Amino acid sequence: MSAPDPSAPQGLLQLSRELRSGAVTSQALVEASLARIAALGPHLQAFSHLDGERALRHARAIDQLRAAGIDLGPLMGMPIAVKDLFTIDGMPTTAGSRVDIQDLVPPQGSFVEALHRAGCVVLGKTRTSEFAMGGCNPSHPLPWNPCDAQVQRMTGGSSHGSAVAMAAGVAAFTVGSDTGGSVRWPAALCGVTGYKSTATHWPCDGVFPMSPHMDSLGIFTRGAGDAAWVEAALGGREPAPPPGLAGLTFGLPKQHFHDQCDAEVLHCFHEALSRLKHAGVRVVEIDVPEVVEIDEVFRCLVPADILAFLGRDRMKAQWDRLDAVAAQRLEVGFHVMADDYARMASRRRQLEALVRKRSAGLDAWITPTVPMLPGPIADYRTVDDIAAWNRRATRNTRPGNLFNRCGISLPIQHLGAPLPVGLQLCTHADDDVALLGVATAVEALLGSPGLPMR
Amino acid sequence: MSAPDPSAPQGLLQLSRELRSGAVTSQALVEASLARIAALGPHLQAFSHLDGERALRHARAIDQLRAAGIDLGPLMGMPIAVKDLFTIDGMPTTAGSRVDIQDLVPPQGSFVEALHRAGCVVLGKTRTSEFAMGGCNPSHPLPWNPCDAQVQRMTGGSSHGSAVAMAAGVAAFTVGSDTGGSVRWPAALCGVTGYKSTATHWPCDGVFPMSPHMDSLGIFTRGAGDAAWVEAALGGREPAPPPGLAGLTFGLPKQHFHDQCDAEVLHCFHEALSRLKHAGVRVVEIDVPEVVEIDEVFRCLVPADILAFLGRDRMKAQWDRLDAVAAQRLEVGFHVMADDYARMASRRRQLEALVRKRSAGLDAWITPTVPMLPGPIADYRTVDDIAAWNRRATRNTRPGNLFNRCGISLPIQHLGAPLPVGLQLCTHADDDVALLGVATAVEALLGSPGLPMR
Repeated sequence: MSAPDPSAPQGLLQLSRELRSGAVTSQALVEASLARIAALGPHLQAFSHLDGERALRHARAIDQLRAAGIDLGPLMGMPIAVKDLFTIDGMPTTAGSRVDIQDLVPPQGSFVEALHRAGCVVLGKTRTSEFAMGGCNPSHPLPWNPCDAQVQRMTGGSSHGSAVAMAAGVAAFTVGSDTGGSVRWPAALCGVTGYKSTATHWPCDGVFPMSPHMDSLGIFTRGAGDAAWVEAALGGREPAPPPGLAGLTFGLPKQHFHDQCDAEVLHCFHEALSRLKHAGVRVVEIDVPEVVEIDEVFRCLVPADILAFLGRDRMKAQWDRLDAVAAQRLEVGFHVMADDYARMASRRRQLEALVRKRSAGLDAWITPTVPMLPGPIADYRTVDDIAAWNRRATRNTRPGNLFNRCGISLPIQHLGAPLPVGLQLCTHADDDVALLGVATAVEALLGSPGLPMR
Repeated sequence: MSAPDPSAPQGLLQLSRELRSGAVTSQALVEASLARIAALGPHLQAFSHLDGERALRHARAIDQLRAAGIDLGPLMGMPIAVKDLFTIDGMPTTAGSRVDIQDLVPPQGSFVEALHRAGCVVLGKTRTSEFAMGGCNPSHPLPWNPCDAQVQRMTGGSSHGSAVAMAAGVAAFTVGSDTGGSVRWPAALCGVTGYKSTATHWPCDGVFPMSPHMDSLGIFTRGAGDAAWVEAALGGREPAPPPGLAGLTFGLPKQHFHDQCDAEVLHCFHEALSRLKHAGVRVVEIDVPEVVEIDEVFRCLVPADILAFLGRDRMKAQWDRLDAVAAQRLEVGFHVMADDYARMASRRRQLEALVRKRSAGLDAWITPTVPMLPGPIADYRTVDDIAAWNRRATRNTRPGNLFNRCGISLPIQHLGAPLPVGLQLCTHADDDVALLGVATAVEALLGSPGLPMR
């Protein structure tokens, strides 16, 4: 028997069947994961903490459970990796920072417990940007984007370790969180699928918080069908059959989402749109003027939320330990007044209601996920360069958090770009299951580029 | 036929039957309301805006609808009064302030629309403390507490106009809002029943906001059975039959709620408790240490929320129009930092979860509503006197808002006090219907003092 592929090119449903039939063991999958991580070398930097011994012990115990006739469900035995914002008992949590935050680490939470109960085997913790702010901390190790073996390229953030681990094919799926695009953004730039759930869909307890208004959990998978399958498996359901494309209506926002796009991104996006229309999807232009408010709301709420959790005194005392990009962002939080904050929090609730009305009758909005291709890291030399890039790179994902929606990014670079491009679908809060069905149908039409392996 | 009593000593169900049978008309009820208001004289000051002509036109139209065979449901034709924080088309909204806030007045909202659709006839807008802050603005007209015809006594606030209108018997029920006790507090001091719904139970759109974290709507009625009946009628349901007292378990908080109580308040409270125990209610002492945090959370969140809505520039420009008590409270909001605000907002969510756990298995907490009897207004001479009284008077009601609960205050002065005393029952968010059933059962045992008419 040749070594199995933990990233399941045959799809997670098929991998699950192989695990259940005994054709593959969890131990063999974890061994293949560890071998792959070793083969990819130290510059991969997807993990901040990898514990192969523990994962193997876990996998062997899972295999023994199965041998004893115990079935924990369809995810049983799958090797996964989890962003280092999630507490996992027995593994360190740093939230991507050199600042001492051990007293703030929450107890292990419901989502990790659900993964354990489902029999998933956690290989380790994946790298996150410092306190999940932005895509790149120049003073920290940055995961290597598997889309280019020669040139180190931007991965986006903050869940870049999980995006890279999935893109490098070292896990069945990986776990992240998304407050302004931190799942969809690195998914798009690394060439994988990234699903960001509605903020209340999966519980955020046990996850180091960024902004309680907008924090949400998400997963990285090879494709949309796998994302739908994992979501259903965690919910104890079969995935719903995908809808027919000919019955769907997508909203195409007139403003904002195309303004700062690279030509290659627009090329792939328009090709996808053209094929979807040809398959019978109705595409209607929509006005979403509220989207221009993202910068003001994010700038007001998020740094203050992070500072509130970390505490002024701690941050003043340990300011030198912060990466310069994170420091610039967090510094804003020291000067925000409560009435401005309260007004923005209220405005966010208003915007959500307005946008929900505007989106009535639409199955999803369709946009590019990130306006640019993943450029070489060397092109971004200063803190201001990186901050400007962060703002531009997340201009299409932050609206999903601002308006309390769920969303998914599908890789579409095979439609004509030299580097990863993402197609974003997003819809109302709590329509997660429908969104994943729609994304599965879109993927079935457009096909998938496969993982961008080196 | 003698003039009907709009405050329905026979109970609202019976009044509803009389309206439906034609034994009484809406016009006759509104005429009786207006006559009673006129008879009580100008010092009643329950209304900031009274429109008798409009109410009579409305009532006649309702009577004609009924004559045409149209039944709008059990509330059809009842005269009511609504706090001047609620927008009602065709009536002015001042939110109790001399500050110009006309551009901030929201469109008429769902709750008022529901009252109109149910056929209620609004007599006018009732006085509120300025921007719903506190119980008493010395520079504004203050409603006269009907519990004492000779001495003007504290009414509590902020919905004191609605409490006084109900206590004076000029309406079938009246409407208020409650962010720190603004329904339960004046209900207790004026000798009527005040039900504060769970914050999300009735929609707050169309109501001038105070703190979106804690704003909730409520009603004043003669008794708990009427409150349950109105809540059910607005929901299109029959009220649930009240539970048997012998099956109930009440939590009696060990700390805080009895610390600063007048002897007369404790006397009535213990008499009520003793009768309830005798009737088979199980009373268990509970620890609620979280309650000591009310001052810190309220001081941080509420002034900043009000300032956020009113706007710094407006308030600076019109500072002299503020009553001194309101100004002292609002001034705090100018200095709160966003990270402190965000931390308190997070803490509030934690507290809610902690308290919910502590209250598992309890049908309600039982406490005095307000620690003191309604003292003479003349005893409170300075802004600091009034501010200190506000804080003490709401120490038992604010926990309900802080912990996101629903609550009700029942009048129990007939158990042995010379002036109104309230018994507070409160329980989990969204258990409103159960709470109202429990309150109805408690009222059936303890009886009711009747309205404290002059």
